[in-house]
Amino acid sequence: MSTHTHDSIRAVQWTGTQLSLLDQRLLPHESVYLEMDTATAAADAIRDMVVRGAPAIGVTAAYAVVLAARRAWAADQRGWRAGMAPDLKALADSRPTAVNLFWALARMGQVMEGLPDDQDPEPALLAEAERIHQEDVDGNRHMGDLGAALLQDGRDVLTHCNTGSLATGGYGTALGVIRSAYAQGRVKHVYADETRPWLQGARLTAWELVQDGIPVSLLCEGAAASLMREGRVGWVIVGSDRIAANGDAANKIGTYGLAVLARHHGVKFMVAAPTTTIDMEAATGADIPIEQRGQEEVLELAGRRVAAPGANAWNPAFDVTPAELIDAIVTERGVVENPDLQKMKALFAAD
Amino acid sequence: MSTHTHDSIRAVQWTGTQLSLLDQRLLPHESVYLEMDTATAAADAIRDMVVRGAPAIGVTAAYAVVLAARRAWAADQRGWRAGMAPDLKALADSRPTAVNLFWALARMGQVMEGLPDDQDPEPALLAEAERIHQEDVDGNRHMGDLGAALLQDGRDVLTHCNTGSLATGGYGTALGVIRSAYAQGRVKHVYADETRPWLQGARLTAWELVQDGIPVSLLCEGAAASLMREGRVGWVIVGSDRIAANGDAANKIGTYGLAVLARHHGVKFMVAAPTTTIDMEAATGADIPIEQRGQEEVLELAGRRVAAPGANAWNPAFDVTPAELIDAIVTERGVVENPDLQKMKALFAAD
Repeated sequence: MSTHTHDSIRAVQWTGTQLSLLDQRLLPHESVYLEMDTATAAADAIRDMVVRGAPAIGVTAAYAVVLAARRAWAADQRGWRAGMAPDLKALADSRPTAVNLFWALARMGQVMEGLPDDQDPEPALLAEAERIHQEDVDGNRHMGDLGAALLQDGRDVLTHCNTGSLATGGYGTALGVIRSAYAQGRVKHVYADETRPWLQGARLTAWELVQDGIPVSLLCEGAAASLMREGRVGWVIVGSDRIAANGDAANKIGTYGLAVLARHHGVKFMVAAPTTTIDMEAATGADIPIEQRGQEEVLELAGRRVAAPGANAWNPAFDVTPAELIDAIVTERGVVENPDLQKMKALFAAD
Repeated sequence: MSTHTHDSIRAVQWTGTQLSLLDQRLLPHESVYLEMDTATAAADAIRDMVVRGAPAIGVTAAYAVVLAARRAWAADQRGWRAGMAPDLKALADSRPTAVNLFWALARMGQVMEGLPDDQDPEPALLAEAERIHQEDVDGNRHMGDLGAALLQDGRDVLTHCNTGSLATGGYGTALGVIRSAYAQGRVKHVYADETRPWLQGARLTAWELVQDGIPVSLLCEGAAASLMREGRVGWVIVGSDRIAANGDAANKIGTYGLAVLARHHGVKFMVAAPTTTIDMEAATGADIPIEQRGQEEVLELAGRRVAAPGANAWNPAFDVTPAELIDAIVTERGVVENPDLQKMKALFAAD
């Protein structure tokens, strides 16, 4: 793994020979890319949040499988398939909630299955990873148009966490909708939760919006209820890390509370996510594993302990918003309003 | 103004000759007391949040009036009353929302009115300030018992911001209820919002609870909805900076959202505050001025800019919880359940 800085910003890219990840832990102060040529380094990067955001994790995992294949093929040109197993397990164990990770591994696995034992798997797997990446960007653009069409009252919108270029293959899910809506004149100003404890809103979302010239005001999560009560926003727009078959949606901690507050105040609630985020194996949100992260994320600030020694922290990384609080799930295959199992099934039946 | 460190912890104290304030901006890393002998220094300290918490601001203002009187008397033994006016105005202008500030100034003003023009006002004013301070502590203790009696289901509680010894003359309002409830075995573990942007929960509340040996877990505000959904807490207990005649209660930003979430999840919601916090001149919460604080509190972290240049912040310091979302207002004069104008009036009619 080597480090260097780039001029342009992409969260995940293939350099031609290696995987390159923008270290999002250092943003917005520094834009440092970490280049890695092993799948285990990529798995560590996912776990340590060098890269985050469900779709971006999926794209990263796809490229990491290419690195796993290269190493396994170099070690044993007959046993590459078995040789990849530990790397694939390390990737699967990196983070539990975002289903895009498992979807990407499964799709790469399908390509692997179709390859003969004595053929170098890297070219075919790289082509598939690049397809996954491009499909994610294309899907985001289409979702952006579909979601933007729902924003008709001219009011500002509120978003949570980061769901933009940094969280995806490029463009963004919820932030893609906001980008499209801004381009169409449907949104003129965005409110963004700072999103504790990791401050994805303050560090990442504000940075992306400023780069695009879209006016943005940050607020603490605690101020969101007042924002809604004052009538400043017409929609809350968020992404998702896993959507269950009935439409329940897991997303960054704080999302569920926003959904309750939105319903209380008559504000609409949109989840924008590619269909790769939908897990039809999970009947409801209760089947979605919620990652608990380290207490230090809450007990420390900027690397320094803030809370008195002896205090603990409760730090779930995600929460689940029940489908009945969601007005629209926007995917690249279409919009599901007031989601339920039948409508979610119909989304896939359109194949 | 001089600085030195103490062994014991009191937020506001009179040294015998000066006002001494624990600099809460440095907690929990350092316990530094700032001693001041002018009212303008005290007004600056209130504005800059050396001292915070509505009752503590009231006690501080009372002592600051003593300092104003001393200076005015030294300057002109006939014109001390007029000479105090600029200092009193500086105190009144320091922070707008906590009514305890204005209540303390009014009560000190009543003593001033009763004094002859040619008498040194300091002794009588100091005696009154010390009475205000002692009454606040005594009231807190009584509120603690009244509030604790409401906690009957044995579940944990959630609190917001800091309402303990640091926010009052001593003991605490909401945290006083929690202290009393813990001493009685009614509460065994406390959840505390970290309370962005100033982190009063992480820096101050956790510190006070650890000192008292009360188990505490911090959480980000965004996790509160999940906490309630999991059934972990039976009550949300908060303080207030101003309560209107109809029972609407202003408190630290984030409180109103908790009240909406509590009602949604069947969790009870308690406001603990002395009657000095009640402003019968404010008909409803709409009459309570809400302080907007500097954007840097959100845009910076630990003194370093986090958000991209060009991003703004929306940073109201308080919000208003409507009376209909409050199950009980606990004061030193008694408990008002499901508050409304008639019940609030009855609280004072008991004189």
